[in-house]
Amino acid sequence: MHKAMLLVMDGLGDRPIKDLGWLTPLEAARTPNLDTLATRGVCGVMNAIGLGLRPGSDTSHLAILGYDIDQYYTGRGTIEVAGLGMELEEGDVAFRGNLGTVDENLVVTDRRAGRISDTGPFVQELNGLHYQGITMLAQPGTGHRVGVILRGPGLSSLISDNDPHEVGVKVHAALPLEDSKKAAFTAHVLNHFLTEAHRLLKNNPLNVERLKQGKPAANYLLARGAGYYKKIEPFEKRYGLRACAIAGGGLYKGLGAFTGMDVFKVSGATGLPDTDIAAKFKAALHALQGTYDFAFVHVKATDTYGEDGDYRGKLAFIERIDAAAGLLLDAPFLLAVTADHSTPCALKRHSGDPVPLMMIGEGLVRTDHITTFGERSCARGGLGRLTGLQVMPEIINLLGLSRLIGD
Amino acid sequence: MHKAMLLVMDGLGDRPIKDLGWLTPLEAARTPNLDTLATRGVCGVMNAIGLGLRPGSDTSHLAILGYDIDQYYTGRGTIEVAGLGMELEEGDVAFRGNLGTVDENLVVTDRRAGRISDTGPFVQELNGLHYQGITMLAQPGTGHRVGVILRGPGLSSLISDNDPHEVGVKVHAALPLEDSKKAAFTAHVLNHFLTEAHRLLKNNPLNVERLKQGKPAANYLLARGAGYYKKIEPFEKRYGLRACAIAGGGLYKGLGAFTGMDVFKVSGATGLPDTDIAAKFKAALHALQGTYDFAFVHVKATDTYGEDGDYRGKLAFIERIDAAAGLLLDAPFLLAVTADHSTPCALKRHSGDPVPLMMIGEGLVRTDHITTFGERSCARGGLGRLTGLQVMPEIINLLGLSRLIGD
Repeated sequence: MHKAMLLVMDGLGDRPIKDLGWLTPLEAARTPNLDTLATRGVCGVMNAIGLGLRPGSDTSHLAILGYDIDQYYTGRGTIEVAGLGMELEEGDVAFRGNLGTVDENLVVTDRRAGRISDTGPFVQELNGLHYQGITMLAQPGTGHRVGVILRGPGLSSLISDNDPHEVGVKVHAALPLEDSKKAAFTAHVLNHFLTEAHRLLKNNPLNVERLKQGKPAANYLLARGAGYYKKIEPFEKRYGLRACAIAGGGLYKGLGAFTGMDVFKVSGATGLPDTDIAAKFKAALHALQGTYDFAFVHVKATDTYGEDGDYRGKLAFIERIDAAAGLLLDAPFLLAVTADHSTPCALKRHSGDPVPLMMIGEGLVRTDHITTFGERSCARGGLGRLTGLQVMPEIINLLGLSRLIGD
Repeated sequence: MHKAMLLVMDGLGDRPIKDLGWLTPLEAARTPNLDTLATRGVCGVMNAIGLGLRPGSDTSHLAILGYDIDQYYTGRGTIEVAGLGMELEEGDVAFRGNLGTVDENLVVTDRRAGRISDTGPFVQELNGLHYQGITMLAQPGTGHRVGVILRGPGLSSLISDNDPHEVGVKVHAALPLEDSKKAAFTAHVLNHFLTEAHRLLKNNPLNVERLKQGKPAANYLLARGAGYYKKIEPFEKRYGLRACAIAGGGLYKGLGAFTGMDVFKVSGATGLPDTDIAAKFKAALHALQGTYDFAFVHVKATDTYGEDGDYRGKLAFIERIDAAAGLLLDAPFLLAVTADHSTPCALKRHSGDPVPLMMIGEGLVRTDHITTFGERSCARGGLGRLTGLQVMPEIINLLGLSRLIGD
């Protein structure tokens, strides 16, 4: 059976922590199921971009899924809007955005408009604005989030965010990041749309209502992460594997959609610590028992705990993943388990430290002498040290599907 | 504390030697302090240029300091003259040189003019010679050594040495190494300067005096290692770390100066087997306790013993380094210990064998199971196998200073 599941635990890798007896959260956690898988499989360590290089979540996943970021990555916006189900066309420039609140001087007073929960009715009237040959498409995301696409000829993603990323300062004008006509034009058009959007939002009766209720008005579109869309070879075409993506977080659904996978809606998959991990694994098993050949399963909260520096929370969440991983012990397909990057609790942010990786599949992998799934144990494993771009070729090879080079 | 010390033991790596019970000098040496550091740190092996590739001391250090030699290396001359404190300008062609002795037929009788100890009074009258728009700058180095710069438009470093590298043969004419106007012009200008220099040196009263004393006259400038100077991004700008270089040998001071580090004068640091290793380590500790963020510390004699094939001398010198390394055991910064290349005593020259590498920093590195610092033990370490260009990104990552790639 030429089928595989790729489980990515976001930000899993860590550094030794004194309070954990100089173990990492993964090393200190009780993980009998992951350890059983390590014992049955072959282990290694992986840097998504390269040794010592610190990846974002978008770039690391693209690399792990086999897409060279030099070729395919231009910014996070395209991936985010793909995750909202927006169809991208070659030449589009896309943004992730928030609806936020500004005062009469355009100073941001709330970047999330009081964590407004449904931007749909506001975004509706922004969708389809037109100016100088460019159409703005807008669609609601979860909570305060919005996806924005500029569509038309002559656009560039080399423009800055209008989102100042903090409150108490005036919204920025989007500025060209290079000396080119396209960048200047794109910044000009976006700034026009943002002014127009502010006028429309300010006068939206729903905002008049919000103000009466004492809530901050959702009166400004804050855009960031401009990305230029070039057609990308879909995962299925590239590998011959019909693929699905199972994730709670918007970016990870977006990565699935961006690479042409079917993005599953799994009840209870939230991208938060309360996510239903077992439900995700069951959905993947079901898909692979059916017509799917590849399931990309993403779990987010390991990263969130790392960014909070909460190593006990990270450890406990890893134990929850392990409990659910009992479902995977007898899975009749190739299983690859790894992370996109490390998020050491001591740093509270991504790092370039490698992450553990294991591949399990009876008769498919050679196995090694490693019997625990951890950062240091896997560094001694049979897979050695890989980069993200080497993961998919190895999976394809173990599945017996790799193309002959030569004769 | 975002600070690091990089200790490079030149030519440290070796091959198993029968007389040492098939151990390498490093393996056979008693090194309790280096072994303690290995136990506390994470180990690996490193090839400065690439697996099996045999680096010079200049190229290997450039790579380890993060400068791609394809982009930054054009010849040793520029690095050597930087080490003499000569200021380079874009377009300069620089040489390392000796004052040597030739007979009336220009046959070299002594490449070092009787190991003359002060070339200053001789070099003085060569400094500032001018011909066809090109100025020759000359400055004394240690002993018989001289630094030479040609400055002016239209120069190339693709010319051969006039130094024949042996006695009993006539000095060579510098020849263009490619069919270009610039190379031909540079060779022509250099040959003119060398003839003029010979005339001036021959008639220098100090040489008349030397001949009276029965000493060989310092009557010829032997130049080699032409290098073309292109501006190089300074280390501090590249990494955000204020750096100092602590070395005895001229090349290594030159590498510090070339990459924009502050080059320290440390009393007792000679670049020879008698060097005061502890004084170097103390100077590095002092710098890092002060305003410096990075200390590059170089120890030379391991390489010298290797080139002499003196494995017992190499072993004893390694034990002297280890004794001084006691000073580093409780250093409150990241410590990286490695070599630039191997100089196996059996070969008496550089080889492409990897060198051991370890990085130590409580809470910064993951550690591994390696408890001795040696070529074979480190090959099993958690860092795996690196190239020189991966060393600085890994240091920057461990310091938590690496740039995010993506979002």
